[in-house]
Amino acid sequence: MSALEKLNSRLADVNALGAAVAMMEWDQQTYMPRGGAEARAQHTGILSRMAHELFTADDTRDMLEKAKGEASSEDDIAMIRVTERDLDIRTKIPASLVEEKMRLGALGHERWVEARAENSFKTFAPTLERLFDICRQEAECLGYTDHIYDALTDQYEEGATKKSWDAMFGSIREPIVDLVRRIKESPVHPDDSFLTGKWDSALQSQFTEHISKAVGFDFNRGRQDVAPHPFCTGWSIGDVRLTTRYKDYLGSAIFGTLHESGHGMYEQGSPMQWDLTPLAGGVSLGVHESQSRTWENIVGRSRSFWSKYLPELKSTFSALPDVPLDQFYRAINKVQPSFIRVEADEVTYNLHIMVRFEVECAILTGELKVNDLPEFWNAKYKDYLGVTPATDSVGCLQDVHWSQGSVGYFPTYSMGNILSYQIWECLERDLGDTSALIAAGNFKPILDWLIEKVYSQGRKYTPAQLMTRVTGRPLDAQPYIKGITRKYEDIYELSPAAV
Amino acid sequence: MSALEKLNSRLADVNALGAAVAMMEWDQQTYMPRGGAEARAQHTGILSRMAHELFTADDTRDMLEKAKGEASSEDDIAMIRVTERDLDIRTKIPASLVEEKMRLGALGHERWVEARAENSFKTFAPTLERLFDICRQEAECLGYTDHIYDALTDQYEEGATKKSWDAMFGSIREPIVDLVRRIKESPVHPDDSFLTGKWDSALQSQFTEHISKAVGFDFNRGRQDVAPHPFCTGWSIGDVRLTTRYKDYLGSAIFGTLHESGHGMYEQGSPMQWDLTPLAGGVSLGVHESQSRTWENIVGRSRSFWSKYLPELKSTFSALPDVPLDQFYRAINKVQPSFIRVEADEVTYNLHIMVRFEVECAILTGELKVNDLPEFWNAKYKDYLGVTPATDSVGCLQDVHWSQGSVGYFPTYSMGNILSYQIWECLERDLGDTSALIAAGNFKPILDWLIEKVYSQGRKYTPAQLMTRVTGRPLDAQPYIKGITRKYEDIYELSPAAV
Repeated sequence: MSALEKLNSRLADVNALGAAVAMMEWDQQTYMPRGGAEARAQHTGILSRMAHELFTADDTRDMLEKAKGEASSEDDIAMIRVTERDLDIRTKIPASLVEEKMRLGALGHERWVEARAENSFKTFAPTLERLFDICRQEAECLGYTDHIYDALTDQYEEGATKKSWDAMFGSIREPIVDLVRRIKESPVHPDDSFLTGKWDSALQSQFTEHISKAVGFDFNRGRQDVAPHPFCTGWSIGDVRLTTRYKDYLGSAIFGTLHESGHGMYEQGSPMQWDLTPLAGGVSLGVHESQSRTWENIVGRSRSFWSKYLPELKSTFSALPDVPLDQFYRAINKVQPSFIRVEADEVTYNLHIMVRFEVECAILTGELKVNDLPEFWNAKYKDYLGVTPATDSVGCLQDVHWSQGSVGYFPTYSMGNILSYQIWECLERDLGDTSALIAAGNFKPILDWLIEKVYSQGRKYTPAQLMTRVTGRPLDAQPYIKGITRKYEDIYELSPAAV
Repeated sequence: MSALEKLNSRLADVNALGAAVAMMEWDQQTYMPRGGAEARAQHTGILSRMAHELFTADDTRDMLEKAKGEASSEDDIAMIRVTERDLDIRTKIPASLVEEKMRLGALGHERWVEARAENSFKTFAPTLERLFDICRQEAECLGYTDHIYDALTDQYEEGATKKSWDAMFGSIREPIVDLVRRIKESPVHPDDSFLTGKWDSALQSQFTEHISKAVGFDFNRGRQDVAPHPFCTGWSIGDVRLTTRYKDYLGSAIFGTLHESGHGMYEQGSPMQWDLTPLAGGVSLGVHESQSRTWENIVGRSRSFWSKYLPELKSTFSALPDVPLDQFYRAINKVQPSFIRVEADEVTYNLHIMVRFEVECAILTGELKVNDLPEFWNAKYKDYLGVTPATDSVGCLQDVHWSQGSVGYFPTYSMGNILSYQIWECLERDLGDTSALIAAGNFKPILDWLIEKVYSQGRKYTPAQLMTRVTGRPLDAQPYIKGITRKYEDIYELSPAAV
């Protein structure tokens, strides 16, 4: 066996262990009976440790170094680059810290659930303090030049730094705050109350699968199940799993499914010859999110989309009133500054993220004490969104991320929003106005374009390289600002802002 | 860490890999999209190999040897005994043979599917020849004193030999053949056509879950899904998975579910402190099958059971005619010599097994050439059941076992039938007549007795030890013969045979 073959074989073993963990986690959210929880924790713990040990074993590094001399194809060179990056990240953090973080993450999650249920930030604060401590240690192990945040956020978004996020948020903060202000003053008040009711689960399942299939998620190579929080996972290009949820608000299932279908089509779009290798899948969280947002918002919350699907929606859910397309379109795009990120509309969403980004930076550097978080949080919400959370449960305790020690992750959501419009602009430059395609339910040209430009590239390029290849430039908020400004000026009948 | 702790930790790692494989196999039969098959084969292949390598590693044997000196509790001593047995079996067979068998088993399965579909034994014969060859090699590696069959069958049923199976079949052959003959001459001809129809899947799911829950399968520690062939699997005492299937014959789902519930309750009945250790679960295939047969046949095909559940069945399936209990009872116990084992009734079932046992022995020793199998098979069916399969597809090609290299497995089915009555006789000695309990839907005393005597013993004792502890004697066909003779004399209005 050549060194390259040995490396590939090692990586296939690591991949199999990762697939097992992914499937166990999927099952835990979808089908696992309550009694399975304890054993599940032991199994995923052991398999994760085995994957970590096998991947970071000295001989993996040896194989990698030797394989470098053999790699000649573009793909092999890219595979080695990606593997080296992953290996660097994984080996810099000592096993003891990994284990402590995992343990504290499990505990933290439990504490967070309690604290949120009891609206008691105090219960969670000491654990949160320790979780941020561990993140600080992690960052020191990973290393950084400018800011401690850089080390953490690079794990989720290769090449991103505090500075680059500052620049990104800087370019959207004012226009969004301004747009929100103008919307608030608009005489238009969309009514979306007709979307809330007791909707049959089987019909929600049927309709969401129908539109997921329609946009191009391949159910021969994937499926959709139900989970408390929608997510997308998978363990092969041929086996990608979506989840959705059925709530009183009909939009939960519909937009949840379209969002996860975007993630899913990205995963399904990798070239089959990369299956089960490090080159398959999404290049970064931000780019991944750009695709979920594309299908959820740019496609799924467009007037054209519902000109096609509203009649079908109405015939599926007979209790739905016979609202005109325009009213429906406004309802699903209602802007309303609120406390809860996951329920936020397309306009205010990034404001929620900004608060979290600022909190993370301030706690990491010590400018903000964990105990002062609620006050800081509420002040920021007042400032950006003009609202004050009634309780910490719907305030600084609402998100799961920190309870699991994920710090540096949130900005990728905003990057996704921004990048979705930046890529879409290029897509429309190539395909022309897409509204006719969407209105005809003809998503194939759109999906094909995205597969060619983005999905089929897997992890071959860095996120920055990919963005430049696809859009000709680095992250640029202008298409996003222009896009949402136009869209919501129309919906809220605002006089066009000077651009 | 003590040697015992080291051993336990190693076994926990092996258990986690096994759990991953089990879950992947479960998912493959229940939810996996078509496109996932190739990756699934790679993942289970790798994880199985890792489990094998880790378990049979030299240092596992070292840990085991050292742990022997430390083990003092009954449980630890039993755990070591069981581990040593498993390790002996696994290490005696060289990895190359394991791999060849796995490869040929996968290929064999594919060939078998084709051959059965095309009714072409010839297509399958060369592969079957090689599969039996590998089993012969395996037997030589495992070693045996009397007969090559002993080495193979011991893997499934500790302590069983060709001789012991000969004795078992010897004690039931004549009485069963005789009973079948008398039934054939009976003027009673039960009509079960009313059980065939287009039954709603959701209702079948609801009703089967209802009776599964009623007999005592704990849905907080398990669940039921749909699969092409019913099976029971699991990866923790707290997470046991049943499957069933929904067919035109309503009995498929009902008795499939009760059968798998028996397996499932056995698995759920292990003491929680043994969870994820080698002591949890069933002691052997034969004992396991005795429990599935108990709940399927002794309980589920009893008149008392349906005196309770027939009204509920009728109200669930409104298309079911209002048949009297007696007619229903006869219908679900209809005896009909036929070609297909899995559809066989309680009386003729063991005749199907005898044919397979004789085939296995004859091919292993070379008395029978693989090419002559169809002729041999058909002659045996004529002899034991009085029928001749119309094609090989419903004859010697009907079962999956040989195509995967499982030889020596079939007799455990008959052992299960026999043992179920032997254990039940003791249960009734302790609890008195059970028909009132069953008719009241009060299964708890029955389940509690079985948990105490059998399920909670896990793998602590050998099958022979367990049988003696529970019933006071080794395997004994008399209760079975007496039980079915009585039952079917009643159903078919036969004059009692001289006993």
